Amino acid sequence: MVLQRITVLGAGSWGTAFAKVLADAGRDVTVWARRPEVAREIRDEHVNSGYLPGVRLPDRLTATADPAEALAGAEAVVLAVPSQSLRANLTGWRGLLPAGAILVSLAKGVELGTLKRMSEVIAEITERPEHEIVVVSGPNLAREIAQEQPAAAVLACTDHERAVAIQHASAGPYFRPYTNTDVIGCELGGACKNVIALSCGMAAGMGYGANTMATLITRGLAEMARLGVKLGADPLTFAGLAGVGDLVATCTSPLSRNRTFGERLGRGETLEQAQRATGGQVAEGVMSCSSIRELARANGVDMPLTDAMHRVCHEGADPAKVGAELLGRERKHEWS
Amino acid sequence: MVLQRITVLGAGSWGTAFAKVLADAGRDVTVWARRPEVAREIRDEHVNSGYLPGVRLPDRLTATADPAEALAGAEAVVLAVPSQSLRANLTGWRGLLPAGAILVSLAKGVELGTLKRMSEVIAEITERPEHEIVVVSGPNLAREIAQEQPAAAVLACTDHERAVAIQHASAGPYFRPYTNTDVIGCELGGACKNVIALSCGMAAGMGYGANTMATLITRGLAEMARLGVKLGADPLTFAGLAGVGDLVATCTSPLSRNRTFGERLGRGETLEQAQRATGGQVAEGVMSCSSIRELARANGVDMPLTDAMHRVCHEGADPAKVGAELLGRERKHEWS
Repeated sequence: MVLQRITVLGAGSWGTAFAKVLADAGRDVTVWARRPEVAREIRDEHVNSGYLPGVRLPDRLTATADPAEALAGAEAVVLAVPSQSLRANLTGWRGLLPAGAILVSLAKGVELGTLKRMSEVIAEITERPEHEIVVVSGPNLAREIAQEQPAAAVLACTDHERAVAIQHASAGPYFRPYTNTDVIGCELGGACKNVIALSCGMAAGMGYGANTMATLITRGLAEMARLGVKLGADPLTFAGLAGVGDLVATCTSPLSRNRTFGERLGRGETLEQAQRATGGQVAEGVMSCSSIRELARANGVDMPLTDAMHRVCHEGADPAKVGAELLGRERKHEWS
Repeated sequence: MVLQRITVLGAGSWGTAFAKVLADAGRDVTVWARRPEVAREIRDEHVNSGYLPGVRLPDRLTATADPAEALAGAEAVVLAVPSQSLRANLTGWRGLLPAGAILVSLAKGVELGTLKRMSEVIAEITERPEHEIVVVSGPNLAREIAQEQPAAAVLACTDHERAVAIQHASAGPYFRPYTNTDVIGCELGGACKNVIALSCGMAAGMGYGANTMATLITRGLAEMARLGVKLGADPLTFAGLAGVGDLVATCTSPLSRNRTFGERLGRGETLEQAQRATGGQVAEGVMSCSSIRELARANGVDMPLTDAMHRVCHEGADPAKVGAELLGRERKHEWS
């Protein structure tokens, strides 16, 4: 399967950076941007100054604000819109998706209300079987990839051949994709890590150092693996790039929106203040902590860190109090 | 088992911080320092300005440069000297160790030449059974613990009761120790993480960001777990505080000597230049990469990251070249 014509729907930082990866790998790439001025800037000036300032985009990358124009003839379609708006966007695009095109998801989250993973939402709306959907995960901070820093990624699909097709379409000197068939594990890792990054940011905002951050990452990894295994994921996935890898990159980098949002909360800002200060955006983890918490409850899985973040974000709990409770939890043996 | 009188042999940053933990938990603690002026400063001024500047040590903590005085009546003895000098030090102290005292190891490494873990060296020299030796591990940057930031730790001993005795002797509001019976896993995690931290520092020194660091941490975790499982460790240990936890803290913190030493190598300094710049000390990982590499070879385990660090540290290989090789390794499926 040789893919040449690929469309990326969404011109945020990760969508744009992944479009650059594909274009640098020799593909013909069209980006759809919601705002015509963003599409024009990408197409005519080869930059996306709002999301990837200072990054020169490849000449062979073009853009449009018209989804029909963007999707015409696409052999693969990359979905790069925020997870909680994926359903609404995709419903509008449904009739435009070329038959047989591989669908690739960059969205990370669990949908509020339905508690579906992104590939499940895509399968539902497009009425495609799940083995036509490839999920991208791993330690992939968009800005670093746009700067052509070497990064490894995971392409997960229950159909190995389709994962390999996207691997061939995207691999290059600075982007090293590995294939995996555990879609559930990769998607849950990607969703849960935003909540944990929020907690790490919060701890940093309260003045805690690397010991505390490492403890939160360890505990967070354990609870995401518990949920994953319960839902049918391979535990090994959480030890790999889509688990530990993505988690560590997101939790430690100042480029991570979830981490920086958490820092504001840890310094005492309210959700509304933090949201205003970050241009009206709420970090993904703020939404995901509620849907993941519900998913965990529905499956009888204990996720104390996610619970704690939900209490801080949505029930007005004091971060300092919640932190002390979390760190003080009575456990005698590490795994009891 | 109630322990009251505890001796800490070694007044470096971790030895001193752990002595403070024990004293704050209500124990009577004597620190042995090699240099009389350090012992005097701890005893009379309640500070260790060389290793923990700005930290006020508890009044109930005393110190001496005389090992016999330090060890008289000790119910537990904490070994806090560098791993490669543990054998020589312990040989000198052998006749002074009170019968029945629990031996606690803070040392992390694999001995050059013998390829023994620290608890194996302790068992050999003292002729004690391994179940009398407790190993301390986890995300425990000494300076942060000395600042009373909350931290979780692992106390590993094949005899659960002895681990619990040290847990009771050390637990307090800012130090949360968990017990574990997997001594092999905890010790190998502690040793291997220094080598990986060196590689993360090197990548940072070369200008790479969080994606690269997260990838090194993920690959490093996989190779330490491979070695551990081969040697009889529980794979779960590497997913916990003594694995991921210790690894993440050491790899991400500017307080980690191995990380900062690696940064110097990444910026182009030679081993000798880096050593001079850090006061003549060589980072633990510089030594450990050789002994861990040998241990892996002797057991037929593939450890590409450790190999790479050995080549940089001891065979004059160029960090940039080695890094490109590591990141460019041909792998199609994540776990193949």
